[in-house]
Amino acid sequence: MPTRPVLRELGLNTGKKARLRRILFRHGLCNGTAFFLPYDQGLEHGPRDFFANPAASDPRFIVKLALEGGFNGIVTQIGLAEKFYWDYAGEVPLVLKLNGKTDIPADERALSPVNATVEDAVRLGADAVGYTLYVGTPAQEADFEQYRRVREDAHRLGMPLIVWAYPRGAAIEAKGGKDSFYAVDYAARTASELGADVVKVNFPHPEKRAAVPSSYDEEFTTQQAIDAVVRSANRTLVLVSGGAKLGDEAMLEKAHESMDAGATGLIFGRNVWQREHDESLRFVAALREILAKYPGESE
Amino acid sequence: MPTRPVLRELGLNTGKKARLRRILFRHGLCNGTAFFLPYDQGLEHGPRDFFANPAASDPRFIVKLALEGGFNGIVTQIGLAEKFYWDYAGEVPLVLKLNGKTDIPADERALSPVNATVEDAVRLGADAVGYTLYVGTPAQEADFEQYRRVREDAHRLGMPLIVWAYPRGAAIEAKGGKDSFYAVDYAARTASELGADVVKVNFPHPEKRAAVPSSYDEEFTTQQAIDAVVRSANRTLVLVSGGAKLGDEAMLEKAHESMDAGATGLIFGRNVWQREHDESLRFVAALREILAKYPGESE
Amino acid sequence: MPTRPVLRELGLNTGKKARLRRILFRHGLCNGTAFFLPYDQGLEHGPRDFFANPAASDPRFIVKLALEGGFNGIVTQIGLAEKFYWDYAGEVPLVLKLNGKTDIPADERALSPVNATVEDAVRLGADAVGYTLYVGTPAQEADFEQYRRVREDAHRLGMPLIVWAYPRGAAIEAKGGKDSFYAVDYAARTASELGADVVKVNFPHPEKRAAVPSSYDEEFTTQQAIDAVVRSANRTLVLVSGGAKLGDEAMLEKAHESMDAGATGLIFGRNVWQREHDESLRFVAALREILAKYPGESE
Amino acid sequence: MPTRPVLRELGLNTGKKARLRRILFRHGLCNGTAFFLPYDQGLEHGPRDFFANPAASDPRFIVKLALEGGFNGIVTQIGLAEKFYWDYAGEVPLVLKLNGKTDIPADERALSPVNATVEDAVRLGADAVGYTLYVGTPAQEADFEQYRRVREDAHRLGMPLIVWAYPRGAAIEAKGGKDSFYAVDYAARTASELGADVVKVNFPHPEKRAAVPSSYDEEFTTQQAIDAVVRSANRTLVLVSGGAKLGDEAMLEKAHESMDAGATGLIFGRNVWQREHDESLRFVAALREILAKYPGESE
Amino acid sequence: MPTRPVLRELGLNTGKKARLRRILFRHGLCNGTAFFLPYDQGLEHGPRDFFANPAASDPRFIVKLALEGGFNGIVTQIGLAEKFYWDYAGEVPLVLKLNGKTDIPADERALSPVNATVEDAVRLGADAVGYTLYVGTPAQEADFEQYRRVREDAHRLGMPLIVWAYPRGAAIEAKGGKDSFYAVDYAARTASELGADVVKVNFPHPEKRAAVPSSYDEEFTTQQAIDAVVRSANRTLVLVSGGAKLGDEAMLEKAHESMDAGATGLIFGRNVWQREHDESLRFVAALREILAKYPGESE
Repeated sequence: MPTRPVLRELGLNTGKKARLRRILFRHGLCNGTAFFLPYDQGLEHGPRDFFANPAASDPRFIVKLALEGGFNGIVTQIGLAEKFYWDYAGEVPLVLKLNGKTDIPADERALSPVNATVEDAVRLGADAVGYTLYVGTPAQEADFEQYRRVREDAHRLGMPLIVWAYPRGAAIEAKGGKDSFYAVDYAARTASELGADVVKVNFPHPEKRAAVPSSYDEEFTTQQAIDAVVRSANRTLVLVSGGAKLGDEAMLEKAHESMDAGATGLIFGRNVWQREHDESLRFVAALREILAKYPGESE
Repeated sequence: MPTRPVLRELGLNTGKKARLRRILFRHGLCNGTAFFLPYDQGLEHGPRDFFANPAASDPRFIVKLALEGGFNGIVTQIGLAEKFYWDYAGEVPLVLKLNGKTDIPADERALSPVNATVEDAVRLGADAVGYTLYVGTPAQEADFEQYRRVREDAHRLGMPLIVWAYPRGAAIEAKGGKDSFYAVDYAARTASELGADVVKVNFPHPEKRAAVPSSYDEEFTTQQAIDAVVRSANRTLVLVSGGAKLGDEAMLEKAHESMDAGATGLIFGRNVWQREHDESLRFVAALREILAKYPGESE
Repeated sequence: MPTRPVLRELGLNTGKKARLRRILFRHGLCNGTAFFLPYDQGLEHGPRDFFANPAASDPRFIVKLALEGGFNGIVTQIGLAEKFYWDYAGEVPLVLKLNGKTDIPADERALSPVNATVEDAVRLGADAVGYTLYVGTPAQEADFEQYRRVREDAHRLGMPLIVWAYPRGAAIEAKGGKDSFYAVDYAARTASELGADVVKVNFPHPEKRAAVPSSYDEEFTTQQAIDAVVRSANRTLVLVSGGAKLGDEAMLEKAHESMDAGATGLIFGRNVWQREHDESLRFVAALREILAKYPGESE
Repeated sequence: MPTRPVLRELGLNTGKKARLRRILFRHGLCNGTAFFLPYDQGLEHGPRDFFANPAASDPRFIVKLALEGGFNGIVTQIGLAEKFYWDYAGEVPLVLKLNGKTDIPADERALSPVNATVEDAVRLGADAVGYTLYVGTPAQEADFEQYRRVREDAHRLGMPLIVWAYPRGAAIEAKGGKDSFYAVDYAARTASELGADVVKVNFPHPEKRAAVPSSYDEEFTTQQAIDAVVRSANRTLVLVSGGAKLGDEAMLEKAHESMDAGATGLIFGRNVWQREHDESLRFVAALREILAKYPGESE
Repeated sequence: MPTRPVLRELGLNTGKKARLRRILFRHGLCNGTAFFLPYDQGLEHGPRDFFANPAASDPRFIVKLALEGGFNGIVTQIGLAEKFYWDYAGEVPLVLKLNGKTDIPADERALSPVNATVEDAVRLGADAVGYTLYVGTPAQEADFEQYRRVREDAHRLGMPLIVWAYPRGAAIEAKGGKDSFYAVDYAARTASELGADVVKVNFPHPEKRAAVPSSYDEEFTTQQAIDAVVRSANRTLVLVSGGAKLGDEAMLEKAHESMDAGATGLIFGRNVWQREHDESLRFVAALREILAKYPGESE
């Protein structure tokens, strides 16, 4: 059975270690697992994501949910961080997302432009920064370039770097799509090779085999697939994403398999807040029960 | 018979000389030859390269192989260097690969974006940096520009620069392909003219003559071809690459011919670690036996 | 009869004047004429240029030829300058070529990317820098931009700037080709207008009149053509290029006409080193005899 | 019995660890101890230090001594590093001393001005840098300021920082002098508190008690004194200095006590090279015998 | 008998080597010796130095003297270089003196402020730069700091650095004075330790023994003294200065002893130009006769 990497083995500098330890051992379940609440969909998809639960349009609703639900951190773009986090600063860790884009233009040359800096994150008291890297697009030249600067700043300032590793582009679509086992596995590895501290991946779909490289054109269980993805990430901590809202049973099953594979935690947004407040908390409680079964080594 | 260039004749500054001497005379066979273990395929090809030997997905497996096999250095991207090399720092030389890309988009305008700096390499205690230069693509303008900055930093900081000289692009495909004698010879010379200290080339195929310039459209033995390539590189040290995994006899034969031609050494990745651990070491031992026959002048 | 410009009339700053005077009056024939040995064909055409005389693949062969032949300077890219010039530093002037490219991709948007800086040239003790300007290509915007920066640096550091003024691109091909009188004349003038200190031109072919502008669609002797080219260059010193290897008589005739026209000298590469060593020296001696007939005013 | 700190516990970044491991485990006795040969006395005291053994005026004599004697490193100023180390680059580690001064003006406001940078050290392939910090002088404001910049650069570039912690100035003279137990102990702690990786101290003299603070005005053995000094340095590795040439027995006794106290090694200059070559080697062998008794944990 | 260092052993980068070779082997006697004409006394002492020979107030008089006398170079401040050297650019090497001061204030805290940059020297086509370092003054902190920047620029741009190593200040006056053997020897060593390529020293006076350190308080011949000074400079080339005008016999004797000691050459100003033109040339001829007896190894 795979084991989760422990902080002291990761070659982290002191600041990165201090902040990650704070996130993993002083928030949420305080047991080394992580449960993040991402809230950048207003930019990435637009307000349509809030129609299912209009209250979720208000960032205060989300921050309160994070506090009540015992999350290890919330993720926002700079604007919401500036306007809402000051009020809760220090109560729940902030992950400042440094790049983002609308979903209005087509995705074939997807590139997520940087709109905030690691220094902004320091200034706001954030405990990590987030960066979306689109793996496989023709724009990877510009993407790697802006990513490199973020990585350097994050290193210099001791700020953990969480990479949203998202396969994208025509070539990906032609080889099984963005959530195939092949695509997710390659994306996880890319984040690791390029120096992410934490990588957010979508749960892999081994059944999407149309035109994938032959190694992936075999029968794999979802457990085998997520095991491989976590292995590919090696010392980069893995967060598994919820993605679009699905049935609860399916989500809980994914969460179980991810933690079994050695993931460090979950990052669930729409699945959490696209429902009424109390129902959210019930779903959150179910996920926390799972995470509680995977206590990490105290460090 | 061609002779290998010796360090003191290469016009190297003190730092480059110190680091190359350390690699060539204080590691591996300590006889002036070099045997490198490259491990950036997780980025360049994706995790599928590890399916033949899943243990190789773990960078620790590779570093241990480098130590047990007596390699002169390992090559990784920044992420694995940050997370794994600290544990082995100073035991085996690190070559930090400064650029890289996924193989997801098509190769016609191949450009390998820079994702780390020479200063990163210094900070990590690396003994050399690597850069992939795609010779012959329409993107050579951007490639030369980013290469130039790497070359300047490497010079300023006394860091040896190893160029992966890879012919690529439609024009290359139309003139014999990327491993024709013509293409490899031109790539080696390009690296030399542009100031590489060491050049990694693929073994040339003189039989690939379709549409190559007339000078190359003759009968050449592989020995004649590799002799010419090393001559074209002149005072740039040559490393011959293993490429995709082939039969062992063919690889050993290539190694012999390369060293006869005056190459400084070999750089074999998949041929080494796409097999079970003990078998790897047996193959490595056979290659080391060859290198042992080509001791360099003590400097 | 046209007269050659003299240094003191050219408005040169002190460093440019010091270095040009050194080249023209302290090397070669020391009589104000110039004879340069260019050696960047390994990059521009690839190693195939050395097949006629494999010894010429070795830069040491070329530097020795420059010394024995009494040249005023050799021209190389940064890589060969770093690795070979240190050994001969100060014996023969170095012209560092700052840009260059392979001939692998098509020439229709030819642009020669910069791979070294004027500061590199200073650091290497060079006495001039070279820049290839492709006159007439659609890429001239990028070309003029990078040229401008080279010109500024050359001015700031007192480094003479030699422009390889090469007509290129589809529009040139459609109007008489790259060595028509029209094209060469226009290229010489372009270099002069853009601030070159010295311009390297191909010998003009007035007989190539297909589709040239009407002014050039007349009967001109080659002498008239080269006279006009030198006049177009005005206070930019002219070097006439040998180009691909031709018959010796033709070359000597070209040399005579060029010097009669007021050119400052010659720049012959393949015509010189694509032959056996002693034969090279005999040909060089014949060219020097011509140059000796055109002593410049002692300055 | 005190134990020596081990590298993996020191919170070193990768480059510092790589370089220290190289010094401690790949040179000298390769057992985790260190024996350095300092050679900056030509600047610090002037050539009079060479009158006892004129051969020692020649840096080549010293480098050869370092190689024959099996030292872990030599220490020089930038000038000798530039002019002599290139020849031995990579054979013996270089510690580039970044500041220094003549002993001509009086010492009352002693400040050792910086004359080289950490980047110079990187460029020269050095494995550590040295800085003299005068503890207790009225110039400590300027000293701390320039020290801070060195420390920052050393951290950024992964270069181990060795601090020559020298008590100086009128106040020190008034309280027991520069080699009292009080002064040496305070200097060791100062280096540790200010971030030195390694500290060079003089052997403490507990008998110098005139006007020292009361805590030090007790009977202490030299063993107790050096134990305390090493304890004060905690995770800063301690090198004990030889100082002016003394009797051999006294020196060997000091060496024993230092290593018993948990020092990492010795740094002996004049005691070594102010004698004839063979006698130097005999003395060095005696010191190495002592160091051999204190093997460090293999890391 | 001591031997002079040869350029190829000095670890010089290519630009420094090119420029020094040009000075030593292409000017003056072209035999590896050097004879410089310094002309910065108008700043250092004021126009009173020209009263003995008013013609010498005109820089043209001096440049012509340098040309007629066959000097290896002239030394001026930036103002005269700008206004006079352009006319002679390339005829005789220029050493641009980068700092200087008036002799109006007292010398006790002597510091010679920088008034031009290495880049100015490049722009003017100079072949070396000069810097006055006052050894032993209380201002050495500021001196070392500005010197360090000059040294770095000179290295970066490949410009030879000539240090005027002048003992100065109250402490020097108290220990034998500025031209004692002790002071000159220490100054030569300081220049060498701090990275000068060439050092200008005054001829040492071993008879000035009042209060010098005991090593120097012995009977030494002037030959022994200058031998030691050159040895202290090791791979830094030594130029011996003429100083104030003395009797010719004494000067010629000094020149002989200096060259016997392994000095590279002489730097004589007032002794040369504080006399009428023809007499100057006769004296210069006598000095050149001496230098001709010390041909250096052709490099």
